[in-house]
Amino acid sequence: MWNGKVLKLLTNKTLKHSILYKRITRLISVQTQCLQQRAEVQDGLKNKQNVANILQDSSSFTYRSHTCGELRQYHAGEKVILCGWVQFVRLSKFLLLRDSYGLTQCVVSNPDISISNIPLETIVKIEGTVISRPNDMINKAMETGEIEVTIENLDILNTVDKLPFNLRDYQKPKEQMRMQYRYIDLRFPEMQYNLRKRSQMLHNMRKFLIEKHNFCEVETPTLFCRTPGGAREFVVPTHHHGMFYSLVQSPQQFKQMLMSGGVDRYFQLARCYRDEATRPDRQPEFTQLDIELSFTSQDGILSLIEQLLYETFIKELPKPPFLRMTYKDSLEKYGTDKPNLTYDLQLQNVTNIFNKSNEDFGAYIIPYHILFGKLTTKYKEKINELKKKYNVKVVLNENIINEFGVDTCNRIKDKIGHDYSCVLAIGNAENVCLCLGDIRQLLAPLLKSKELLIIEDKMTPLWVVDFPLFIKDECGLQTCHHPFTAPHPDDIHLLETAPSKIRSLAYDLVLNGNEVGGGSIRIHNVELQERVLRLLNIDASTLTHFLNALKSGCPPHGGIALGIDRLVSIACGVESIRDVIAFPKSHEGKDPLSGAPNTISDEDKRYYHINISD
Amino acid sequence: MWNGKVLKLLTNKTLKHSILYKRITRLISVQTQCLQQRAEVQDGLKNKQNVANILQDSSSFTYRSHTCGELRQYHAGEKVILCGWVQFVRLSKFLLLRDSYGLTQCVVSNPDISISNIPLETIVKIEGTVISRPNDMINKAMETGEIEVTIENLDILNTVDKLPFNLRDYQKPKEQMRMQYRYIDLRFPEMQYNLRKRSQMLHNMRKFLIEKHNFCEVETPTLFCRTPGGAREFVVPTHHHGMFYSLVQSPQQFKQMLMSGGVDRYFQLARCYRDEATRPDRQPEFTQLDIELSFTSQDGILSLIEQLLYETFIKELPKPPFLRMTYKDSLEKYGTDKPNLTYDLQLQNVTNIFNKSNEDFGAYIIPYHILFGKLTTKYKEKINELKKKYNVKVVLNENIINEFGVDTCNRIKDKIGHDYSCVLAIGNAENVCLCLGDIRQLLAPLLKSKELLIIEDKMTPLWVVDFPLFIKDECGLQTCHHPFTAPHPDDIHLLETAPSKIRSLAYDLVLNGNEVGGGSIRIHNVELQERVLRLLNIDASTLTHFLNALKSGCPPHGGIALGIDRLVSIACGVESIRDVIAFPKSHEGKDPLSGAPNTISDEDKRYYHINISD
Repeated sequence: MWNGKVLKLLTNKTLKHSILYKRITRLISVQTQCLQQRAEVQDGLKNKQNVANILQDSSSFTYRSHTCGELRQYHAGEKVILCGWVQFVRLSKFLLLRDSYGLTQCVVSNPDISISNIPLETIVKIEGTVISRPNDMINKAMETGEIEVTIENLDILNTVDKLPFNLRDYQKPKEQMRMQYRYIDLRFPEMQYNLRKRSQMLHNMRKFLIEKHNFCEVETPTLFCRTPGGAREFVVPTHHHGMFYSLVQSPQQFKQMLMSGGVDRYFQLARCYRDEATRPDRQPEFTQLDIELSFTSQDGILSLIEQLLYETFIKELPKPPFLRMTYKDSLEKYGTDKPNLTYDLQLQNVTNIFNKSNEDFGAYIIPYHILFGKLTTKYKEKINELKKKYNVKVVLNENIINEFGVDTCNRIKDKIGHDYSCVLAIGNAENVCLCLGDIRQLLAPLLKSKELLIIEDKMTPLWVVDFPLFIKDECGLQTCHHPFTAPHPDDIHLLETAPSKIRSLAYDLVLNGNEVGGGSIRIHNVELQERVLRLLNIDASTLTHFLNALKSGCPPHGGIALGIDRLVSIACGVESIRDVIAFPKSHEGKDPLSGAPNTISDEDKRYYHINISD
Repeated sequence: MWNGKVLKLLTNKTLKHSILYKRITRLISVQTQCLQQRAEVQDGLKNKQNVANILQDSSSFTYRSHTCGELRQYHAGEKVILCGWVQFVRLSKFLLLRDSYGLTQCVVSNPDISISNIPLETIVKIEGTVISRPNDMINKAMETGEIEVTIENLDILNTVDKLPFNLRDYQKPKEQMRMQYRYIDLRFPEMQYNLRKRSQMLHNMRKFLIEKHNFCEVETPTLFCRTPGGAREFVVPTHHHGMFYSLVQSPQQFKQMLMSGGVDRYFQLARCYRDEATRPDRQPEFTQLDIELSFTSQDGILSLIEQLLYETFIKELPKPPFLRMTYKDSLEKYGTDKPNLTYDLQLQNVTNIFNKSNEDFGAYIIPYHILFGKLTTKYKEKINELKKKYNVKVVLNENIINEFGVDTCNRIKDKIGHDYSCVLAIGNAENVCLCLGDIRQLLAPLLKSKELLIIEDKMTPLWVVDFPLFIKDECGLQTCHHPFTAPHPDDIHLLETAPSKIRSLAYDLVLNGNEVGGGSIRIHNVELQERVLRLLNIDASTLTHFLNALKSGCPPHGGIALGIDRLVSIACGVESIRDVIAFPKSHEGKDPLSGAPNTISDEDKRYYHINISD
């Protein structure tokens, strides 16, 4: 539109034949192109397809002339060839043709052609002419509703057996069925949309990293040696007697060796493997955006990721910088290290009301409006379970007086205001917070349903920082992130004296209550790394190559990994990551299509020197 | 430059404050951006780095201000911060600082700073000022030779132990050593160049496929079930007793199921696995550009790949279409299915000179100029080996008379001309050609050394088409490509009567004698697929899911896979694919860094229900 004005201005100025005019028209054409590229990068599939006709050729290298989604009134009169699936046949005259780009209504024009007996989902090729519909026949509900295509020639390219289910939204099958016949399920517009959005988002991330910031994508091996600590790794037998690879759970060691190797701006959309068959909504293999950077700081990594997501994420994110919160605050205010900030409902510390000496003791409440009334038994039971799980005492508003007397009750009321009730939990401070964190998630939807809480429909990214370096359990010190995480410089002096008090330079990215990424500044000094391994009781000899890399001239560095499956599922607004994975495994790591895993041949067993134990 | 003129024109026209002016300046900024994007996409790494300063920020999110490769005269006077490796120290005054982008000479300006005892490869951070060198001091050999940076402040960021080898080209270590200390080897400029070129080439391929032709990149699983036929697949034990995944040797089944699922323009830069430990220059895991397209033809796929490579390959390729040759011609003219066309030296058929009835019999020669003289014993021995290998009779020029008499000899001379000698081979026609194919490669460099043959230094891509569908061996019919390859429509009638005579719709891409890709039009009709599986004695029950996908409404489709490791090694002009892989495995699939594969714990054995057999 603007460009129009520019040209107008020019012609008024009768510059029509000046160099200026030529230059500007060219500038404009270039600009159009550039803006289209932008559109593509920034917008969802919808906009992408709007500009597709100009921008991209979706029918190149095929024998169709157009997709079923692109014909419009201005195509009227054109001879076209369409290919696709028979979606519907009506009055043995109208054939609704579907492909991955849309629907087009075709009409029989040649009396010799009969479409009455074509089974649904048959693959056909239709040659015909675009005719525009009379205004009263235009179907606004359909992108191609302005036109029809006459069927002058129809080839059946492939026949189809009876399908286990139809491609009708109103009779969508159960997930088990969808997974078993994934190659049919993928034809549903939602799946088409999710897979294309995923492809586009990953491409946008690559463009940002490579084109704007000169990162180098490096493919690292997945067949490697066991990494000490961390998740269970799949093992892969080799022809070498008794020798196995491990499938990497992340490229961590490789990317740090790349830093030592001078590949100072690394990223990879990396396939990772974890044998966590038993955990729901986990896949044995998954994709992470793996990034590592030399000569950087925590702030460097955080703002890199903020800009990356702000420019490539398909839903709207707040302008960087994103909110940051320490692990301690997150725990005290929301009872979790991945708080959902689309609603408020914070914990409040009332420990001082209970004069206990024990330093681990804590008393916290979640206040809610008095209009909410009492919880139903169903929810009371759920709270009871949480109580047991965290081994703390939880007292509902109505019982506080009986439990602790009027005085305590009043002091709480004074704190939260007299038109507020609350749930109170006391016991080990950390457990109390975690317990109330779960109760918070339990209450939120209830409060919303009674319009006593606002849950905003927006993206709320949050950095959780200052995680502890170690967690103490019965087996001693465990790493909180991984053994290569750098301690916070201010706390290093506590390394031998009070390790569990040390903060680390680890950070998590939380998006609407989901942990979508985590990373840290790494240890680059070999002595420090060896001290940390000792504290963790990790046998350094399993990491000789890694420690050598650190002492061969390794720059300070840090990085992060983003969980792509979760990130894309949030962008697509779907609950399960399985809806953004083309061929996901079902529970327990089974492949619903092929039935994998399967038995193997005796020949394979001999070749790999393995027997099955009883 | 042009833009400057436009603005000038405008100011002359005193439009300086008009909307027009604002619009145009914005148009110009947008254009610049767009042109830069282009530059990046089209040019090689060199050009990429030339425009880097404008285009890309190689120091964003770090605490350096510039890289060691980018400072020029026009930076003189700027305060800068550089980080990198100490490459060299001279006269305890000059410090040569290296990072992944180049070298910069730094000079001590602050008397309190001593650099005399800093070990090479130490990681340092230098703050200083850019000073331009006097003309007579400019070092033309160095990209930053116009300037120096004063060392006003120097921090040692990480120390370094004695390295196993220095980063000096003139003392480059043996490959075994390079592999063991890969994290040091990667600092050599060649490796930096190769990895960055690889990253860039793959990104350009993605841009071509996604942005120009609306392909969708889909990540498919690597943990799957055994594929009948094909290479040996690694197996992965699971917690389910006696049950194993197989690591996919290619996404073949998945991409065909995607076609059935309506993802009609698929590609993936896919990690694939083959247990071929014993084959040299093979990696257990490798990357292929995997492409599949619905509603297409052989010509469609071929021109897609021609355009893809023409636009994204970093060395210059001939304009598409590339040369095409049938398998039969390739065998008869060059004695191989992957001929190197950088030189001529064709086989000639002289079968008619030997009147034999046996239809398999063939007699072929390689003619070469008489000036070449006789072969040395060394080469005669090599030829003897080939003779045995292919079980044919090979006769050198000088012995033809004794073997077959003057008459035969003359008839050959008449054919090739009297100033030509030749090597003659007779026996089974196919073996004769294959044997002479190897001899051709043996002779070429010799003939070149005597200036009797021209070997051109250019890229010569070639499509080999019309491969046989089957090859007959002692175990019966084997597939020549894979069991899903479509037979040539003209030959289908021979399926039961003369299967070994059937041509297929398979094609290979050959680049300077290397097979860099292969693909085919697939079978989309389930009955035909079942017939082919029967002929190959493949148990269809192992492919139920796949056959169901074909009969659920699967479009006609075809595709290809390009071997990225080989393709990039050719683009980078290196012999071994290991030079374009960050962390390659050595011979027998061993990891020189970590020593993988290793033994696994008894706990793992128990968890996966496996024992090591004796």
